[in-house]
Amino acid sequence: MRSPEISTLFRYCFQKESYIDGSFFVKQLTMRYSTIPVFITLFLLMAFTGTQQKQRVIFFGDSITQAGVKPKGYITVLGEMLQQKGLQDRYELHGAGIGGNKVYDLYLRMEEDVLAKNPQIVFIWVGVNDVWHKRTSGTGTDASKFEKFYNAIIKKLKDKNIKVVLCTPAAIGEKTDYTNELDGDLNHYAALIRNIAQQNNCALVDLRKAFLDYNLAHNKDNKESGILTTDRVHLNDTGNQLVAEEMLKVLIKL
Amino acid sequence: MRSPEISTLFRYCFQKESYIDGSFFVKQLTMRYSTIPVFITLFLLMAFTGTQQKQRVIFFGDSITQAGVKPKGYITVLGEMLQQKGLQDRYELHGAGIGGNKVYDLYLRMEEDVLAKNPQIVFIWVGVNDVWHKRTSGTGTDASKFEKFYNAIIKKLKDKNIKVVLCTPAAIGEKTDYTNELDGDLNHYAALIRNIAQQNNCALVDLRKAFLDYNLAHNKDNKESGILTTDRVHLNDTGNQLVAEEMLKVLIKL
Amino acid sequence: MRSPEISTLFRYCFQKESYIDGSFFVKQLTMRYSTIPVFITLFLLMAFTGTQQKQRVIFFGDSITQAGVKPKGYITVLGEMLQQKGLQDRYELHGAGIGGNKVYDLYLRMEEDVLAKNPQIVFIWVGVNDVWHKRTSGTGTDASKFEKFYNAIIKKLKDKNIKVVLCTPAAIGEKTDYTNELDGDLNHYAALIRNIAQQNNCALVDLRKAFLDYNLAHNKDNKESGILTTDRVHLNDTGNQLVAEEMLKVLIKL
Amino acid sequence: MRSPEISTLFRYCFQKESYIDGSFFVKQLTMRYSTIPVFITLFLLMAFTGTQQKQRVIFFGDSITQAGVKPKGYITVLGEMLQQKGLQDRYELHGAGIGGNKVYDLYLRMEEDVLAKNPQIVFIWVGVNDVWHKRTSGTGTDASKFEKFYNAIIKKLKDKNIKVVLCTPAAIGEKTDYTNELDGDLNHYAALIRNIAQQNNCALVDLRKAFLDYNLAHNKDNKESGILTTDRVHLNDTGNQLVAEEMLKVLIKL
Repeated sequence: MRSPEISTLFRYCFQKESYIDGSFFVKQLTMRYSTIPVFITLFLLMAFTGTQQKQRVIFFGDSITQAGVKPKGYITVLGEMLQQKGLQDRYELHGAGIGGNKVYDLYLRMEEDVLAKNPQIVFIWVGVNDVWHKRTSGTGTDASKFEKFYNAIIKKLKDKNIKVVLCTPAAIGEKTDYTNELDGDLNHYAALIRNIAQQNNCALVDLRKAFLDYNLAHNKDNKESGILTTDRVHLNDTGNQLVAEEMLKVLIKL
Repeated sequence: MRSPEISTLFRYCFQKESYIDGSFFVKQLTMRYSTIPVFITLFLLMAFTGTQQKQRVIFFGDSITQAGVKPKGYITVLGEMLQQKGLQDRYELHGAGIGGNKVYDLYLRMEEDVLAKNPQIVFIWVGVNDVWHKRTSGTGTDASKFEKFYNAIIKKLKDKNIKVVLCTPAAIGEKTDYTNELDGDLNHYAALIRNIAQQNNCALVDLRKAFLDYNLAHNKDNKESGILTTDRVHLNDTGNQLVAEEMLKVLIKL
Repeated sequence: MRSPEISTLFRYCFQKESYIDGSFFVKQLTMRYSTIPVFITLFLLMAFTGTQQKQRVIFFGDSITQAGVKPKGYITVLGEMLQQKGLQDRYELHGAGIGGNKVYDLYLRMEEDVLAKNPQIVFIWVGVNDVWHKRTSGTGTDASKFEKFYNAIIKKLKDKNIKVVLCTPAAIGEKTDYTNELDGDLNHYAALIRNIAQQNNCALVDLRKAFLDYNLAHNKDNKESGILTTDRVHLNDTGNQLVAEEMLKVLIKL
Repeated sequence: MRSPEISTLFRYCFQKESYIDGSFFVKQLTMRYSTIPVFITLFLLMAFTGTQQKQRVIFFGDSITQAGVKPKGYITVLGEMLQQKGLQDRYELHGAGIGGNKVYDLYLRMEEDVLAKNPQIVFIWVGVNDVWHKRTSGTGTDASKFEKFYNAIIKKLKDKNIKVVLCTPAAIGEKTDYTNELDGDLNHYAALIRNIAQQNNCALVDLRKAFLDYNLAHNKDNKESGILTTDRVHLNDTGNQLVAEEMLKVLIKL
């Protein structure tokens, strides 16, 4: 536990305690140069009081994660939840989502967008486009390749002692009568991810299950969107809230 | 009700009472020429005793129905069930299935393969290829077109006072953990058919429901085939039995 | 040959000689009631002078044809060309195009939209969606089915002694370096239509060839649209002009 | 130039001069231990006479390359051509092809299958599956992603001072009337590769052009396979010969 005094000192060192941003944190820090001596003192204090360093958490994914750093996005909401719990000094949340990304796109850019930032924790949330693009553009991802790239990403992260959290893809359509066109395939990829999590001893945020359960309870009119998503895939406010809650449960136990 | 005597006379007139065949019934009748006077007597008897005429039932569909007339096929099994119930004289069962057919293929050939044979009852069982071919060859059927052609078929049949029975597509994959790739779309097309049946006051054989229920009860190992199908789509013996049972229930109430 | 006098009488009978419209011609005739006696005289004259009746020409197709009846659409332009040649009294041009139509959609609606209107000539222009929808929605048309439905349409038209003109699909993309994604398949379907035309002794308007030749000559910058189309598929003014010219050549020789 | 004597010494050092194999060369070397002193002398001689070291050439690709190391495969044939030219001591040819590979699969396995083997030259031949799988399984590669992964592979190779040779995908169908279904897209990806080669100053083996030219000259009957391929994609003997010839021209000039 970090003492409140140190937390205050930390705040004093930076003009803005923006621990949530879409790009890399350090770039946006605006240090008050006059406070450098205080800053040094802070670190000495931390060293002696045994306070934890902030854990850098990267959310690695597609357009859903890209939108997660917006004012009401799930990463922002998760940051606010941490603050309400007084845990804001323990975590630094960073979004690393790019629209249209599939699992192999994550693999291609993980050196630069994840490893180079030295995170302690990485949430991987991918899979919707791997399924969806089969239908829309003939460029989805084979299940066997999906597993292979997913495992390759995990291996590289674990080699750096990074804690990895896997998330299942939440939804492509919210209908509750089992007629969402791609549900079968989406369930298949969600099942693959659950299995990969187990094999690699990774924590799991089962958003697919959370979304299905929520919709079965709340989507009585069998709507295809509007319950947790705006457009069958991307999150509305309730969706962002639900995702943040599910991730919070896992994050604080890591 | 036809009296047993007439039924016996009828049997006497034909060498073989093959009321099941894939092509047209009449072509395959082998009349004993010596019995022509008896035959004439028979018709006179029928005219005076008011006995029912055999109802010609055509099963109109795809490769599943094409296989239905084989020795253990569902149409053959259904014929045997009718015989066990002593109802063999009431129905004449004909298969009209062609592999790879989608709803518009049925529409194209219905004049020749169905209307020209003057049936009293037609079972329509189509939909698997309309969904499946989206994935395998990019040539499935849009949902809106599926409905349009289905309704056009029903209209032409009803215009001839033919009783129409609709069947939902049974399965593309038998897994019970909701990961059959095309289940969402297949459920969608099954739902469309249920709706078309209701709107047109047609009887329904809900094979999709029957197959799901059966698999949930019997496919504990989450196999993708081998429970009711040989290959995720085409029927094994148990599948043929189940289809025949479901159709029998509806047929005898028409 | 119709004498100029009769032609003048005909003009006198109608307020507006609108021989082009998207719906049925007769609905839009506004007869001057006072001219009825003249009209009767006209018909008597026609009967005795052996003048030709106007030939009703229906353009049967997809969204390209649906747009053909607009002010600068190819059917309108063709009408104007006929007028310039003084042939306006010989032909009545009608559009029967519906967006998204594939060959089987034409077959489904041909009774109502074509045969019921008793045309003497029908131009069939279909094929773009049969190829394109394979890619965009998984609901294109198999080549073998394309041929089957096309032949079925021709048969029904020929049974009514209607002259049938076949058109090849013009373009999905105008690039001249052979990199339009669907050109191979489009060329395949164009080849099928050329073959069907030959087998059925139907006239052919080879728009595929005309568009390729025009682009090779005029699209030096390898643009994917903007030469003959607005969007790779639908016609711009130059495209409408080219189509009208190609159709005119064939129409006046029928 | 290496003197014949040294070449003889080299041969003496190894039981079998198998410079062609599908796995890694070094593993298969069986050194005669008694010849170690001779071996050392050899290296001293090489050092002083300035003789070249054998250049290790890796062929990196899909199933076509996987088959390239078979007795009549293109890599084997190329090895024989080098021998006929007396150049066998300059090159060591290794196949690194895996069936079904797309550009991102090459990227995933390049560390282990290419870089770890320290080649001086790498031929990249990929693209058929990136196009083909769009149609067969909905899992092809978007053009933009294709370029991105291709460039990433080249960068990693160039960073190690490896000479990179790019090959365009040869064929998916050999018909010469421009009706091979996927030709448009295949031409597009071939054009992308030509452009990537130019931008990166890489040598190019334009197999797409070579195959088209050969077919236009020799495939008069418009066959879809059997000229250079067995099955529209994989090479027959003539195809292997043509590929080896085209690669030889480029290899000896590097």
